[in-house]
This record gives sequence, C-alpha cells and structure tokens, in this order.
Amino acid sequence: MNDIFETLESDVRGYCRTWPAVFAHASGSTMTAEDGSEYLDFFSGAGALNYGHNNPELLRPLLDYLASGAVVHSLDMKTPAKRRFLETFQRLILEPRNLDYKVMFPGPTGTNTVEAALKLARKVTGRQHVLSFTNAFHGMTLGALSVTGNSMKRAGAGIPLTNSSKIPYDDYFNGETDDFMWLERVLEDSGSGVDKPAAVIVETVQGEGGLKAARAGWLRGLSDLCKKHQILLIVDDVQAGCGRTGTFFSFEESGIEPDIVCLSKSISGFGLPMALTLFRRDLDAWSPGEHNGTFRGHNPAFVTATAALERYWADDDFQNDVAGTIAALHRGLDAIAGSVEGASVRGRGLLAGIVFPDVDAAGEVAAEAYRRGLLVETSGPSDEVLKVMPALTIGHADLERGLGILAESVRAVVGSRTPALAGA
Amino acid sequence: MNDIFETLESDVRGYCRTWPAVFAHASGSTMTAEDGSEYLDFFSGAGALNYGHNNPELLRPLLDYLASGAVVHSLDMKTPAKRRFLETFQRLILEPRNLDYKVMFPGPTGTNTVEAALKLARKVTGRQHVLSFTNAFHGMTLGALSVTGNSMKRAGAGIPLTNSSKIPYDDYFNGETDDFMWLERVLEDSGSGVDKPAAVIVETVQGEGGLKAARAGWLRGLSDLCKKHQILLIVDDVQAGCGRTGTFFSFEESGIEPDIVCLSKSISGFGLPMALTLFRRDLDAWSPGEHNGTFRGHNPAFVTATAALERYWADDDFQNDVAGTIAALHRGLDAIAGSVEGASVRGRGLLAGIVFPDVDAAGEVAAEAYRRGLLVETSGPSDEVLKVMPALTIGHADLERGLGILAESVRAVVGSRTPALAGA
Amino acid sequence: MNDIFETLESDVRGYCRTWPAVFAHASGSTMTAEDGSEYLDFFSGAGALNYGHNNPELLRPLLDYLASGAVVHSLDMKTPAKRRFLETFQRLILEPRNLDYKVMFPGPTGTNTVEAALKLARKVTGRQHVLSFTNAFHGMTLGALSVTGNSMKRAGAGIPLTNSSKIPYDDYFNGETDDFMWLERVLEDSGSGVDKPAAVIVETVQGEGGLKAARAGWLRGLSDLCKKHQILLIVDDVQAGCGRTGTFFSFEESGIEPDIVCLSKSISGFGLPMALTLFRRDLDAWSPGEHNGTFRGHNPAFVTATAALERYWADDDFQNDVAGTIAALHRGLDAIAGSVEGASVRGRGLLAGIVFPDVDAAGEVAAEAYRRGLLVETSGPSDEVLKVMPALTIGHADLERGLGILAESVRAVVGSRTPALAGA
Amino acid sequence: MNDIFETLESDVRGYCRTWPAVFAHASGSTMTAEDGSEYLDFFSGAGALNYGHNNPELLRPLLDYLASGAVVHSLDMKTPAKRRFLETFQRLILEPRNLDYKVMFPGPTGTNTVEAALKLARKVTGRQHVLSFTNAFHGMTLGALSVTGNSMKRAGAGIPLTNSSKIPYDDYFNGETDDFMWLERVLEDSGSGVDKPAAVIVETVQGEGGLKAARAGWLRGLSDLCKKHQILLIVDDVQAGCGRTGTFFSFEESGIEPDIVCLSKSISGFGLPMALTLFRRDLDAWSPGEHNGTFRGHNPAFVTATAALERYWADDDFQNDVAGTIAALHRGLDAIAGSVEGASVRGRGLLAGIVFPDVDAAGEVAAEAYRRGLLVETSGPSDEVLKVMPALTIGHADLERGLGILAESVRAVVGSRTPALAGA
Repeated sequence: MNDIFETLESDVRGYCRTWPAVFAHASGSTMTAEDGSEYLDFFSGAGALNYGHNNPELLRPLLDYLASGAVVHSLDMKTPAKRRFLETFQRLILEPRNLDYKVMFPGPTGTNTVEAALKLARKVTGRQHVLSFTNAFHGMTLGALSVTGNSMKRAGAGIPLTNSSKIPYDDYFNGETDDFMWLERVLEDSGSGVDKPAAVIVETVQGEGGLKAARAGWLRGLSDLCKKHQILLIVDDVQAGCGRTGTFFSFEESGIEPDIVCLSKSISGFGLPMALTLFRRDLDAWSPGEHNGTFRGHNPAFVTATAALERYWADDDFQNDVAGTIAALHRGLDAIAGSVEGASVRGRGLLAGIVFPDVDAAGEVAAEAYRRGLLVETSGPSDEVLKVMPALTIGHADLERGLGILAESVRAVVGSRTPALAGA
Repeated sequence: MNDIFETLESDVRGYCRTWPAVFAHASGSTMTAEDGSEYLDFFSGAGALNYGHNNPELLRPLLDYLASGAVVHSLDMKTPAKRRFLETFQRLILEPRNLDYKVMFPGPTGTNTVEAALKLARKVTGRQHVLSFTNAFHGMTLGALSVTGNSMKRAGAGIPLTNSSKIPYDDYFNGETDDFMWLERVLEDSGSGVDKPAAVIVETVQGEGGLKAARAGWLRGLSDLCKKHQILLIVDDVQAGCGRTGTFFSFEESGIEPDIVCLSKSISGFGLPMALTLFRRDLDAWSPGEHNGTFRGHNPAFVTATAALERYWADDDFQNDVAGTIAALHRGLDAIAGSVEGASVRGRGLLAGIVFPDVDAAGEVAAEAYRRGLLVETSGPSDEVLKVMPALTIGHADLERGLGILAESVRAVVGSRTPALAGA
Repeated sequence: MNDIFETLESDVRGYCRTWPAVFAHASGSTMTAEDGSEYLDFFSGAGALNYGHNNPELLRPLLDYLASGAVVHSLDMKTPAKRRFLETFQRLILEPRNLDYKVMFPGPTGTNTVEAALKLARKVTGRQHVLSFTNAFHGMTLGALSVTGNSMKRAGAGIPLTNSSKIPYDDYFNGETDDFMWLERVLEDSGSGVDKPAAVIVETVQGEGGLKAARAGWLRGLSDLCKKHQILLIVDDVQAGCGRTGTFFSFEESGIEPDIVCLSKSISGFGLPMALTLFRRDLDAWSPGEHNGTFRGHNPAFVTATAALERYWADDDFQNDVAGTIAALHRGLDAIAGSVEGASVRGRGLLAGIVFPDVDAAGEVAAEAYRRGLLVETSGPSDEVLKVMPALTIGHADLERGLGILAESVRAVVGSRTPALAGA
Repeated sequence: MNDIFETLESDVRGYCRTWPAVFAHASGSTMTAEDGSEYLDFFSGAGALNYGHNNPELLRPLLDYLASGAVVHSLDMKTPAKRRFLETFQRLILEPRNLDYKVMFPGPTGTNTVEAALKLARKVTGRQHVLSFTNAFHGMTLGALSVTGNSMKRAGAGIPLTNSSKIPYDDYFNGETDDFMWLERVLEDSGSGVDKPAAVIVETVQGEGGLKAARAGWLRGLSDLCKKHQILLIVDDVQAGCGRTGTFFSFEESGIEPDIVCLSKSISGFGLPMALTLFRRDLDAWSPGEHNGTFRGHNPAFVTATAALERYWADDDFQNDVAGTIAALHRGLDAIAGSVEGASVRGRGLLAGIVFPDVDAAGEVAAEAYRRGLLVETSGPSDEVLKVMPALTIGHADLERGLGILAESVRAVVGSRTPALAGA
C-alpha cells in the first residue's frame, strides 16, 4: 500500500512508528483515529497540551480572533494581542510571584529559547563555558544540542559539541555521594581544568532523560552555589513549566529564583508554537535585533496563551484541582510500581513515570497500552522509563481509566516474561 | 505613559522601534493600526506573508479545520491534514519539477530547517566544514549563526563560530574577478588549508544581506563545482522561495537541482510557523528521532499550506500574474533608482531593493515612507539598501500607489540633502 | 643597574624571579652562581636532570661525538647515533619489560610528545573527545593545553579549549567517594553527554598539579576501565618517567601497560631537548610525514640518552640505589611534615612534596631555603605544595644536607607565623 | 635484514625513505654515509644548518663550554650564556635594525614559537580569529596546525581545526586579481562573516608550501592593511630567517616591521634546538609563567647562537658574500628552468626552487640527484617543486658542482620522459 508518510517523509519520523494510527480528531484527553478508534491521551503532545486538546475555552477566542481579521503574523511589531498577553503574563504570573523578569520572544520553539538563553548568558558574563547535566535535554539546534546528554542525538550534529561540560544530576550516584561534591570542587579549584562557566542550565524534572526529578533542597543548593560563584542559573522549564508539576513554574516549590527561565510547549496552551525567554531585568544586554526570527510574533498563540492564563491562573482554583490530580496519579503509579519487583516511580507532579528493572519493559508496556487504547511514551537514554503525562485538565474518570489500562498492560508484559511469578 | 512593550519586553525588540504603531487588523496588503490609520505593506512579514494578510482562501479552511475539532498539535504522528499536505506538495510542487526529494519537518522556523540541513550534510559526508557566503543570513541558533555573515549578530553568540569558512557571493568584487576563482582554487589545492566541505549553503537572493541576487549562470557554476567535488549544495530558500522570485523555488530559473532545500516563512501561506527540509532521497540517513522537536506537527499550518498550494500552484495562472507584478515593480524601482545619482536596483522578482550611494539614505527613506503610510524596511550590513517586498497577491493599484509613495519619499530624503539638485 | 634579563626578556620569565642568581657552573647536585655562591639542587631542571648536572659519564661521549665530526642535526634521516639509541632503548628498556612499542620522535619537548599522542589517539579511534584529570599538566601548545588543568595557563590560550573533559584524579574527594564512580557512570550511561573519548591521558604523579600520586590500584582500575570501553590509555611520563619514581617507567609498579606513553625531560639524560612517543605496535597508523618537526633528530641527545641507558639501566644496581635514596628522602620528608600540624607528604619516589595547611607556606619555605643555599620549588594550583625533586644520583650526604636545610626553613617560616607553637 | 629503523621506529618517519643512507659524518656542505659515500647537501637540515654542518667556528666554543662544566639546562633561570646571547642579539640584530622587540624563549622548536605568538596575539587583542595563508606551514601542534594549509597534515589532528580562516597568498591567482582584494573586502565589510582577526600570520617565502615568495610590495600592502585595521602582523621567519634570503630577517628588504616575529631552525646556528618569539615591547602582556616549557633554557644553543651572530652578523661581510651566492644560485636555477618547457624558478635568496609542469618531475629529479650524490628535497602540496636550499656558507665550487648535478638530473628525468624532444 502506498503510505505517503513512508514514501515521502524522511526516516527521521518517530512517534508515527510507535503509534501508527492516523489521528483525525481530538478533544480533551481523547484522540480519535480516522477509523473511529479512540485513544486516551497520557502523552499530551509531549507537554504542549497541558490544557487538553481543542480546549473550548481557548478555541473560542482563537476562532474569534481569526475571524475578526486581526493581525496574525507580526514579528516583533506591536499588536493588541501581544500587549494583552504581556499585561496578563505580568499580572497573573510574574507579579504574584515577585519575579521582576524581562520577557523576550526568541522564536516559537523550545530550542529557540534555550539558544537565546545561552547566548545571553555568554554575552553578559563574557565567559564561554556552560555546564549542563547528565541526561539533560534542551533541544536539537547546535547550541542546545551541546548541552544535551543523549549520545544518539549528539552524534547527529556531525561535529564536536564544544564549550560545555557535564555535571551529575541529582541522585546520579543513587545517593552514594554528597550533592554537588564534584561541582563545588571544580569551581573552587583553580586547577580543575573546568573553565568557570557563564551559566548552569538545568531542568527541574528531566522529561526526556528518564524522568528524574531534582529535589527542592538540591535545587536550592545549586542556586546557592551559582550565586556564590557569580554563575547564571538557567532553568529550562519548557516541559516542566506551565503548571505541569503543580505550580506555574516548576521551581516554585523550591523557592529559588533563576536568572533566566526558558518556556515553550504549553505556554500558548493550545499546541500553537510559542516560546519565551525570561531573565532578570539587569541582564537585558541585548542590542536591538541582535537575536531575531520570523515567527516571534505569532498572534494566534498570544491569544490562546492569554486565554489560558486568564482561565487557569487568575486564582488558585486550577492549581488546587491539579494538586488532586497529581495525588491521584501518584497513588495509581505507586500501586503499579509496587506490583513489579524492582520498579519505582520517578518524576514530579504530572511529569512522572515508572522505571522497570528490565530496560525493555517500558517500551513493551507502552506498546501494549497502545493496543488497549492508551497513548503513553517512554523516556531515558535506553527508553527504560514509562513516561506518564496526562493533561492537567484530565477528568477523574479518564485518569483512573488510564491508570487501569497501564496496570493491565504492565501485568500483561511483565507477567508474560516472568512465568514463574505469573503462576504464583 | 506606561508602554508595556518598553517596560516588560526585552531590548532585543527591533521592528517596533521603526514602526511604533500598534497594528490591530490586516487584510491583503493593508495593515490597520489601533488608531485607524492604514499602512500599505511592502514588507510582508519579512517574506512570511507572500499571499497577503488574512487571505480568505486560506482563512476559510483554517477556520473550518479549527472549528471541526480536528487535531491541532501532533508532533510527527500521522494526521489527515499532514497527509493531505504531503500529497499536495508532492503532486503540485515536486512532481511537476521532477524533484525526487524526501520531506522532513525539522521544527517550524527557518533556523530549524537550516540546522537540520547542516546536520544531515555533515552526517552524510562525514566532513565537518561548511562553506557559506559573505553577507549570508541563515538564522540565529548556533549552527545557523555560524554560516551567517552579519558581525553584530555573530557576536551575539558569545563564543567563536567554528567549522565554517566564508566565500565571496556573486559579484562580491563588482565584476573584477572571474566567478568562483577563489572557490575553485581552494577546492583543487590540497594545500589551501580550506578543509573540504560537507556542503555549501547559499541563498539565491540575499534577503537580509543587501538584496544581492545570484545570476543563473553563477548558480549553475556553483552547482557544477559542488558536483565535481562531491560537495552537497544546500539552497536556503526560506525567504526567496514559495514564489517570491516568480517561481515556486527560487532556483528554478537557473535549472540547478540542489541536494538539500530549506523552506519556511511562506510555506504555510498564512504566517503560521512551519518549515520543511527537502533532500535527495539517497541522503535520508537519519535515524528515527535523531532530530526532533515539539512543533514539527503544526496542523493548522498544514491546512493553510495545502490551501495555498491548491489555490496558487495548481496551474500557471498565478505564476503568470506574478510575472506581471514583478515587471511592474521593477519598472517602478528602475525609475526611482534612475532619479538618484549612483543608486541602483538590486534583487530579483518581488525580493528587490534600491541601494543608495549614501548609506544612511535607505533608512531615512523607509522612515519617510512610514510617515506617508508605507511599510518598507532596509537590508544590508549597514542597512544601506531599501528592501521592497510586496505580497505576491498585491493588486495593481496598491503596487503603483506604494511605488508612488516610495518615489516621493526618496525625493523628500535625497532632495532634502542635495539642495542644488532639488532646485534643478 | 641595567639587567638585560629584565630589559629585554619578556615578562613571561618565571624561575629567575624566585632564584635571581646568575648560575654559571653546575656539577652533580650543585649549581654555582657567578659570584661563587653554591646551591644544592633539589629541583633538577624540573625533572630534566635526573642524573645530575654535567654527569661525566654522559659528558664524555657527548664531547667525543661532537669532536668527531659526526652528524649533529638530521631530522628523521638515519644516523648511527640514532640507531644505537633505538637498539639500546629496545634492549635495555622495552624488551626486559615486555613492551612491544613502536618509537616515534615527535619533536624534542614534552608538549610535542603529548600533541603527537593526542593526534594519534584521535586518528586511530575516529573519536574526538579526550578525558584528562583535574590538576593535570601536559604542556603549553594548544592541544596539550586543552588537557591541562591550571586556569591561569588555560586562559593564556585566548580561545576556548575544546574537545576535552575533566575527570577527578585519584583522591580528588579525599576518599569520600569510590574511585571512578563518575567515570564509570558517564561511560556506561549513553545519556551522560560525555562523548565517548578517544583516550584518557594521565600522569601517575601530578608533578605540576600538586604532587598527588595515583595509587597502583587506582591506575589498574583506570586501565581496566579503558580496556573495557576500548578507550586508549595515554600515560604522560614526561616528568615521572626515566626512573624518577624508582623504576624506569612510573607505571611499572602498578603493572599496567598503557597504549601510548609520552617521554621527554630526562630521556636524553643530560638536559638536552629530546622526546619520545611510544605506542602499541598496532596503533602505528601514521602516514609518512603526517607529523614532523625540525628537531626530531637531535643526535647529541641520542648520544647522551644512549650513554645514560647503558650506564644506569643495564642492570638493577642503579634502581636499587635509587630505592635507598627514595627511602631516605621520604624518611626526611615525613619527619618535616610531622613537625607541622596539618602538613603531609605527597608524591612518590623522588617526585615528592609537602603540603602545608597554610597555602602561602610552601612559597615562603622555598624562598627561605634559597636564602640558605637550596633550590626547591613549589607546585599546585596555588603553589601550596613544596616540591622536592633531587637528582636520582644525589649522594647520601647531599640528600641529608638538603633535608636539613628544608627542616630549618620550615621551622623558620612556620615557626615565625605560629608564635604560640614556637614557644611550646 | 633487520633494520631497526624499520622494525622499531614509527611509520611516520619520512626523509629516511627518500634518502636511505645512514649518515655518519658531516662537514660544511658535505654529508658522509657509513659506507663512505659522500653527499653534497642542498637541504641544510630543512633550514636549521644555514652555516653548514659542524661549523668549526661554532663547534669550538660549544666544546669549550661543555668541557668547562658550565650550566647546560636552566629553564628560564639566568645564566651567563643566556645573558651573552641576549646582549649579542640586541647589539648585532635588533639595534642596527631599529627593532624595539622584547625576546621570549617559548620552547626550542618552530611550532613552540608559533603557538606562543598566536596565544599572545589573542590575549592582547581579545579576539579569537586568526588569518593565515593558502599553503602556509607553521607547525604540527594543534594551534600551529590550525594555521597550516596542507590537508594531509591537517587531517592528522583528528579534530576540526578552528578559529582560523585562510586567505590567498601573493600571486595565488597568477596575477589575475588585485592583491588583497579579498582581504580588504572582508575586513571592511561588517557582513562578510570573516570575524575580525587578532592577527595575520605570514611566511615571506613559503618553504614547505611550494617556495612561493611574497613580493616586497605585497608585504608592505599586507602590513599597511593590518595597521589600518589594528590587526597584529606575525611573520613566521622560522625557515626564511637567519640570513636565508640574504638579510638576517627575511622581511628586511620590504621595510615592514612585524608586530611579532617567530625564529627557530638556524638561530642556534649549529642545528641545536632553539627558538625565539620577538614582539613589540608594548605587546608584552604575559604573566610570569603563563607560557612555560622545560627546554627554554638550552645553554649549548645559546653558546652556538652567540658565536654565529658574532662570526657572521657583526658586520656586512657575510651578507655581501651571501648576496654573491644567491646570484650564482639563481643564475644556475634560471638556466635549468630555462631548459624545460614550462618550468620556472620560485623563491627568494637561498630558499629557492624550480616548479615543473609535470607534478611528478620534482620528486624524480630529487631521486636522481640523490643517486648522483646530491641531497635536495621537494616542496608543495603535491611535492611539485624542487627545493634548493644550500648552506649560506657554501663554497663557490660546491655550489656549481651541485647545480651541475641538478642540471644533469633534470635532463635525465625530463629527457627520459619526452623522447621526441630528446631526439631533437
């Protein structure tokens, strides 16, 4: 059969191999294939759909905006839609959190905001080295790839990735060493050979690298160490931000205040491309136009982003609801992990997962879940972690149904390979 | 007055400084500010709006799509909207031009597609060096910035930009040397110290670098030289493609067939973020997921892209209309340039401009034109070229009106500084 | 007074600032200044004079050679002097140790042999990354500097030092972590972001970086880890080799067999420039002339090198004598370190030192020792270690006399700053 | 037969393949093999033996020095031998030429002095890019290799060579373009993408790259351009300096005054390893010890260097003699080149050569000359140039005899391959 996805699209395509359905419609936490089969979505567009598919509260203003003949594409010209987004973001997000950040539109994707952050950090400090963490994921363009851990993706660069060193993420040694022992030593030792960095870039939860979550105390320690050595701290909140861990920014729980913050994915709320780079007011050393890009001014995204902020972040109700969802999810995951010898839960909030002792298990569970109508992916350098990422707006029934499918899938896979146990 | 664009947005913002209006609505070639003042648009979203603002033929299917509950965000999962785009692109663009390319969705912006092209070229050839041209512009992420010429933007990287050398663009020496003398020699001389490159990346018209247009013969010479030395030829058609020079791809006139082609800006047709990387079928060496990105599957853009292809590229009518617009534009520009001692016309198709002997003149003319209700920007390392880029769909009357404003603005600026001539 | 060293020589000069005497003559372990004052030498030309100054057993054949009209300078042409060196090195050094190495003459200095080793490792493996250790010192040319730790010297490059990461040397964390925890993890974790290296380069004793000595077990662990991951192990034996730690190669005690070994400093035996790069026979992937250099064929150095091998390494007598000297030195150092609260001995063999709790103490002790007629330098990123490096041929009386001066100097310096203890 | 050069020495060895004799003795311009066969030397240790082999005027003080028990190895400590060298160099070389340079001892080889020059240029200017010329040769360590042209040697690095771009050497286009057209344009064009360099490094004659000699006017133009743009000019006079082109520095004829000068090879006069980096007094920004090295203080080389300066550069006699030798050599070379259709003479002074239309001819002529008792090598990326480099002290008879052998060898080789012409 002539499948144009196979004949014309590059071999680089990935998700369509795991989930071969052609997805036609979607609503909330449900995706519907052309053939009418339905899938419960525990994937959420890799974090770009925190408020579910086709959320009507965002769709309505988007349709109104488009139908009104308002400006769609504007680079960094001024538009009312952009003004309203800026005002709303300042009023509902920055001010209540006492964050005195400047806002930059660096281009509409996660890798754009990471590149902008790295450029600014180097420009401001005059230093060239950047530290990033084992199993970090920050993007596919050359600068972002340099601070990314995955060896397969790194090799895609075709050239050495330079001007960055790796340091161990929280619990990289399973608690066997003190936190920051390596980082503290190399920063204090003028003979360490690790050049003093412009910045450290960190994800509070490693969404692609295996769902490890940094503890709040670890993040505070990292922040203190950066301050002590005048190193800028960049939090890449592209995947963990916009409420996914239970608060708007994923670092709120820890109480730290990063120097630079990268946002994208769910900032538009509707799956439309959009990204922000936030930074301390005194770091705004850019010259006009020094970093630019055609799609910085994507007004439909500003419209849905504003609607999402107003609907979900004007008061604490949504955050409280999400707290309940988080608790329910983790109860379910704990139960599933508890049923498999050696498995454990990872992550934080609605960016969570289960790591199995058998590295192939997560992939097989995901495949089994797909057969049972659930979209759930894997994470980690060997895809050894089942990654569970429902919409923040998922209903109780859907959540429990999905957890049920997961539990069955785990049983089917792990049971099928441990016959002795299965018979017990 | 508290202008949130100034108080909250980063100093990196650019266009809003030149054009301080707040643009609320737009239609075809007209943008309307909040205060009701209208502007004729000879800027076209820096090339992202080739079919004009809010083109109803694209808006209608977009509204229908969004209203239908179809999938909006899908990464590289399969959707009917993506299938229809692939089929249409193959049928209307690739097949009629005998181009046997694979299609990759590298992320939705120009710099994403350039990064993907460079990565693939290096991966396929096993070589690390890339050649790019003086005054080239390819993007703001680290890999794309390495092949960009502008020194202000390069300095923004904060680290040395490596693995690339620069070669002179067509007519860099004003006709004083043979084409490719330098390139031919360094490729043939094993002692040149210019490492054999994986690829040469070229724009057929340098949209940001001063509107120089490469001659067809020069492009053929470049292509021949690349073939002779087994070097991949990448055409960055982000700005010059999608019909802007009179044909869908800007290189069609020359008859060359690049190994890799980068498209973005007007590929969605409606100003929505979208990009493609096209390459020879045998170059598709990607592993699944080796290059990825959250916004590769932006279905609203697939919908408008498909509509644009069907409406404008199903037969030759549109191309013939554009040919007339091009002729009219160049008649007008020739007349204006002819009125200023030492000025001349640059560019090709609807990606054209006028360079003035006084480097400040272009900026002053653009400012004057803005006061007279025309949006037109500058280009070149010193902003010394007036850049004229109307929509491909502009009507005859609008075109002539805009040319009239340009002519008056030039007279006002250049006349005001050459009083002797003004009296003549 | 017009001192041409100050008026004409660059400010980069160093030792002449600490030791301002003009040294005219030298013999064995004694240097004599122009004014007749004598200095006992516990410095040994930074390890280039293991057999003492003007050793008559080497001087005689050198004078004979020069007087005979034999070839002095020969690049990599064949000469009888070079042949005799090769035969002697094979017979007395390689064969008895079962080392099947090829011998390369990479240029006459330590940094030349390190550069050659790094180039070969990258060429053979096709990998570009190299791991080196905290506080390593490998040389001042760009490749060697990239694997060096000292931040002041690194900054001298003026460009980012790339393609290398740093890993913790033995006991970097004072025993608080398992050996190789970091290295093992990053090599086994395909998401670590530490690219698989071509090689690890190590000094068995960090001569410049603070006199830390790697334990034999640690070296074996490192060697095993390299073998397991097909990473080449380069031992930089420039300073620790040629008998300084008690055996010809410093790694003999540990039983490891490096893939590549760098020798220089005392290989000529007489302080004449000479260096070797040794490597496993199957790694000899060089093309003829791919690495060259004018002073690869410095025949006077071949002559003294051969004489030194024949005189000192033809049987075990010398090595046994050195063992006695080592024992005596360490008894002395232990006594001195024992007299200062918090001080301890570092290093191995005749490459040893004392680290004081007060970082300024070592420099002050060295200055005091100079005033008392003893040449002894400091080591470490903050010059916090007193570095003691007598000739291997030093007589018992000289050794004890030098230790006496050291003890007095320590007493003078540390006593003078700890009045309470001094009164005890 | 067991030839230890083949069994033990690395395959990287080169000259011994072309000239398989084992050279035992040497005197002036004659080398004598073990078997008694004599060779006339038109190679001069690749420029390290400008005053001939075993020059008795240098040997005598060397033997005296060594026999006296004076200091041999001293790093950068003060010695009378070093003082005398500095005073003599200042008095006989710098002062008469009005050169107010500081003198640095960067380690004893050519590549050491180039690395020091590049480091200093980057440190002083704060810029990272360096320009070097097509077919340049500056050394084998990573920094020097980055500015070297030869692709085989560059590939030996195993990593990309960065932070340098190549520009065309004098007459690279055979007179078809104006000098410096490319360089002038890229420096003046802020959009060229060629980052403003810290320095331009140049050889006045390309000893390894094919014997092209820069014209005096071209060098002046280069110097002017550098001054205009505040770019440091580094002359690598390692091979062309020390009298080889007829004056002590090869740039004297042009009247330029470089900012930094690299010397090595014949500076010791006797083939002993030694190098200098000279630079404008105000550029001496080194911190003490920021660049160091074990063999900076090679006193035997200081002794022969001083003797060479006193013997040959105290007045104009030697320079006048050399002028006669140069004239004779070029008369001879012109005659030989004139005998071969399409051949021509290259180079300047006693650093000259003949390029043949057939790229293999030079190698065959050199091989034929070797069979006839003459040592002469080839140069150029394809070894297409016969490189003729007799000692500056060569006698008239030897010079003519050597030219005679060359003429015969050319006739034998070129005649043998052009039978039609041979019969004419």
